[in-house]
Amino acid sequence: MAQYLEELDGVFVALADPTRREVVRRLGRGPASVGDLARDFPMTLPSFMKHVRMLEANGLIRTAKSGRVRTCELRRDRLAVVDDWLAEQRRIWEERTDRLERLVTEPEEQQ
Amino acid sequence: MAQYLEELDGVFVALADPTRREVVRRLGRGPASVGDLARDFPMTLPSFMKHVRMLEANGLIRTAKSGRVRTCELRRDRLAVVDDWLAEQRRIWEERTDRLERLVTEPEEQQ
Repeated sequence: MAQYLEELDGVFVALADPTRREVVRRLGRGPASVGDLARDFPMTLPSFMKHVRMLEANGLIRTAKSGRVRTCELRRDRLAVVDDWLAEQRRIWEERTDRLERLVTEPEEQQ
Repeated sequence: MAQYLEELDGVFVALADPTRREVVRRLGRGPASVGDLARDFPMTLPSFMKHVRMLEANGLIRTAKSGRVRTCELRRDRLAVVDDWLAEQRRIWEERTDRLERLVTEPEEQQ
């Protein structure tokens, strides 16, 4: 559970930046090299690499080097922890809504 | 669109902390006063208030003061921007999967 919480911290921090979210979106279409990805972003390659490393450190992507080319791949399972967290919140809201509905409807039924 | 992107930055930053996520979860059950919320967290009230203010600044909660009591309420619509972003990523993955499936199945159909 503690590990799951730390994972969530890292995943949310990694996604709190438009460049990194755009990399996630691009890799959703399939793996790509750092060079190909970097071309679409208005920044130097070292600056772009910092974003790539942060995504990798927080487990949202994995990268592998073959010769001079580093290829990036999305790890969807890590985005799933955000999905799971949101699903849990929805479950809590729905329980609350159900409780409120019972409060409103049950006295009527007893009349 | 630019505003939507900035909103997402703030929402993800606000959620990148276990205390703030726990406050969101608690408020999912219904509004609560800062005092009642703070009791469950092992920190000073000023430290807890920093988390409350950050959640409010990023629009995840709204607070209102009545006399000496400040009540917090969850803004579910702001969590929905994370939901929307995740849904968009899933759509991109599904398009890719469909494309890969066509690549695999169509040559067979032509045999």
